[in-house]
Amino acid sequence: MLEIVDLEQTVSKEAFKQRSKELKPALAALSQPIKQQKLPVIILFEGWGAAGKGSMISNLIVNFDPRGYQVHSIIGRSDEEKREPVMWRHWLKIPEQGIMSVLDRSWYQDVSVSRLERGLDDKGALRRMDDINIFERQLTDNGYLIIKFFLHITQKEQKERFEKLSGSKSTAWRVTDNDWKRNRQYDKFYSAFDEMLEYTDTAYAPWHVVSGMDKNAATLEVYSTVLNSISRALKEKADKEKAGACEPEIIVPGDYNYLPMPKLADVPLDQTITEEKYEKQLKKLQTKLSEQHGKLYSKKIPVILAFEGWDAAGKGGTIRRVSEALDSRGCEVIPVASPSREELARHYLWRFWRKLPKDGHVAIYDRTWYGRVMVERIEGFCATEDWQRAYREINEFEHQLTDWGAIVIKFWLQIDKDEQLKRFTARQNTPSKQWKITAEDWRNRDKWDLYEPAVNDMLQNTSTAEAPWHIITSQNKKYARIQTLKIIIDAIEKRLDE
Amino acid sequence: MLEIVDLEQTVSKEAFKQRSKELKPALAALSQPIKQQKLPVIILFEGWGAAGKGSMISNLIVNFDPRGYQVHSIIGRSDEEKREPVMWRHWLKIPEQGIMSVLDRSWYQDVSVSRLERGLDDKGALRRMDDINIFERQLTDNGYLIIKFFLHITQKEQKERFEKLSGSKSTAWRVTDNDWKRNRQYDKFYSAFDEMLEYTDTAYAPWHVVSGMDKNAATLEVYSTVLNSISRALKEKADKEKAGACEPEIIVPGDYNYLPMPKLADVPLDQTITEEKYEKQLKKLQTKLSEQHGKLYSKKIPVILAFEGWDAAGKGGTIRRVSEALDSRGCEVIPVASPSREELARHYLWRFWRKLPKDGHVAIYDRTWYGRVMVERIEGFCATEDWQRAYREINEFEHQLTDWGAIVIKFWLQIDKDEQLKRFTARQNTPSKQWKITAEDWRNRDKWDLYEPAVNDMLQNTSTAEAPWHIITSQNKKYARIQTLKIIIDAIEKRLDE
Repeated sequence: MLEIVDLEQTVSKEAFKQRSKELKPALAALSQPIKQQKLPVIILFEGWGAAGKGSMISNLIVNFDPRGYQVHSIIGRSDEEKREPVMWRHWLKIPEQGIMSVLDRSWYQDVSVSRLERGLDDKGALRRMDDINIFERQLTDNGYLIIKFFLHITQKEQKERFEKLSGSKSTAWRVTDNDWKRNRQYDKFYSAFDEMLEYTDTAYAPWHVVSGMDKNAATLEVYSTVLNSISRALKEKADKEKAGACEPEIIVPGDYNYLPMPKLADVPLDQTITEEKYEKQLKKLQTKLSEQHGKLYSKKIPVILAFEGWDAAGKGGTIRRVSEALDSRGCEVIPVASPSREELARHYLWRFWRKLPKDGHVAIYDRTWYGRVMVERIEGFCATEDWQRAYREINEFEHQLTDWGAIVIKFWLQIDKDEQLKRFTARQNTPSKQWKITAEDWRNRDKWDLYEPAVNDMLQNTSTAEAPWHIITSQNKKYARIQTLKIIIDAIEKRLDE
Repeated sequence: MLEIVDLEQTVSKEAFKQRSKELKPALAALSQPIKQQKLPVIILFEGWGAAGKGSMISNLIVNFDPRGYQVHSIIGRSDEEKREPVMWRHWLKIPEQGIMSVLDRSWYQDVSVSRLERGLDDKGALRRMDDINIFERQLTDNGYLIIKFFLHITQKEQKERFEKLSGSKSTAWRVTDNDWKRNRQYDKFYSAFDEMLEYTDTAYAPWHVVSGMDKNAATLEVYSTVLNSISRALKEKADKEKAGACEPEIIVPGDYNYLPMPKLADVPLDQTITEEKYEKQLKKLQTKLSEQHGKLYSKKIPVILAFEGWDAAGKGGTIRRVSEALDSRGCEVIPVASPSREELARHYLWRFWRKLPKDGHVAIYDRTWYGRVMVERIEGFCATEDWQRAYREINEFEHQLTDWGAIVIKFWLQIDKDEQLKRFTARQNTPSKQWKITAEDWRNRDKWDLYEPAVNDMLQNTSTAEAPWHIITSQNKKYARIQTLKIIIDAIEKRLDE
């Protein structure tokens, strides 16, 4: 992509003045509709050192209402960030609806400069670029607009700019030894940049490679690109909202190794365990899990345990038997309720990204991101296309977790409708347990027949070899607890043996 | 306080079993009312190395619903945390209502171990302990319960425990050279701990010094202390809610150097500036501010600019003239709207703590923490005692910011009622500006006569030498912008000259 950029183009001072007089008010006029129409926007600037990213950002944002944007400079990963998946820190910073996030460098650092300077191999780089494509697709699919600029200059121009900066006392500090080294290795960087641009130039988040040779020309190109991209996105958003629900495409849940899952109706529910055997096994398994936690910690392996199941299926009690075996300083139980305003204003996976464990820690989710394909589907909190697309998005999310090194295990606690009624009634009749049962539980119960196929779909579409679902018969709660502990211990054992 | 602890006390295995059989279910029964009554609880464990903090935490939390607590281990400050005020990282972690936060070490590390090992002088230590007392008072005043444990063992006992741990292959790694060094310097640490305990043993957050010599005795003491403290807090909270609003005490806004402030009614409003002079001065001042920003950055001085004022007084336009002069990568404009659910569930200052700038950065707040003593007071969103107490809390908050090194400047943009009406009407009649005017603006306007005395109270009670208010006449918006820039530049200049 770099080859085809016209580096000769210049714009006269007069022409610049004239044209920017038209473009600047048009850009300024975008602040309000972005906010009103709740469009989240990401504008990122990559490019050669001294290509003019910083001043381009200043030139751009001066047109906007400062309450409507945030500027972030992306540097290397901090120690805290190194304990999380690569894309974690970028996910955390995605803007909320109606806000424009302007980035000085971005996730592309990891696959360009870092690739060459921190020895990321080709395979690793491809994997990272796949992650980036997924990240950008997930965001744009969920309504984000991403505008990507790469500012391009020649080796000679870069050298001259470095020399000029070095020549002045007030700017000499801006040119480091590393910058000079990069200039000498221009060709190597050129290939890496070019490959990155090719690989990540997608229909949903295309690159705009801009010549940085002439500042005026570059500024005008950035202005008009931003103007056109945002105007188009606003129009599309408005049109889409006017048109209402559209026929969803059939979305494949992704190219993963799926495990066969039974339908819920075919799951046998008659397993039980004697009280005596339960006590003995529980103690043994908890001791074992406790030992394993120390090893996970020292090997920095994160563990993600996801619990879903019918109301009153026994999630709380099961989670407790797991968590009490773990060192509380390295384990957190995360109850997932309805999203907060801050969460609703962003991509639905954001709130789970920001609650990931550190490496070596265990996170136990009491309800999960699967709400998207259950309650949000059933209650119509998202559009059909949203939850249909979510299978793939979730598989991708979990893939990034396992790719990071996490053990990911998902449990569906299964009871039948009669058993639920028994438990609901018991709760209602026991004063100390009445808080556990709400009107909403009864409403959800009425929708059992809607939920069951949704759960079946979920299990079919998201049980992968790397992040499998386990259906746990919980008609007998004690049996369920023992089964769950066994599965967790086996999975950890297997990993520790690797 | 350490002297009076009975280190001889033991509890037999039998007695322990018996007593914990009573205490454990009583503790378990607290999970629900904590959640229901929305009590936020902080339980922290400090003490000697090998005194048993870790196992005590495990023994304690095993009784609770794991969805209702979080355990945090507090270690040294990360690089990111070092760029913020000392208490920042602790503020960020305060639990929300109904959640129990259990801390393995805490903010007391900064004034005990760090004091000795990182060379904090006595004066510095006292300042930090004052900050801690303020932190704990602000939390408890706002409904938090803080339970503080210090586990005490003798030098001899500690040595024996270290020897025992070192003797076993699986635990030897837990004893570091530093631990041995601390054991040899037991007396020095003893004095530091003792002073810390004395200084921070307050009525609102008293210390519980527990002998860690006998594990059974210690566990029972922790159990009963937690049980009593939480039960009492729940009862008090329920009683208070039943009783309703109580006669607020007269709260002094704190011992600060207050600046005399005029009443709003006495502020002259007739200053103006010619268009020509404005353009010239604006350019000059923005260039100056831009230069200053680079110096602030290299000296790592944070700047906090707070904007308040009547609706339509021109906050947005003024903020813009300031922000466009600053390097966007080191400046953020923070619009403050009504609090989110996550924010409402915590101390009202939490949301401002979590939006502080890094050192060297500038944060511009479009509306601020002063909402507590204006809109929350007028609309009854908090009790009378809450907003009356807030003057002092805010002064303390800002003092911590200036103590950290920040330049803090606060602006009240003043217009009269007629001018507001003119601007409201103009907005209403200009299609491109209609979004700026809402029904709420008109409602607020109706309450002008309630707001005015509230603003006067605020200006009287919170304009300190270190964080002064400036009333800016904004009847002429351009005049206001120039005045604001001048004040900011002067304050920065003064600091840079120091």
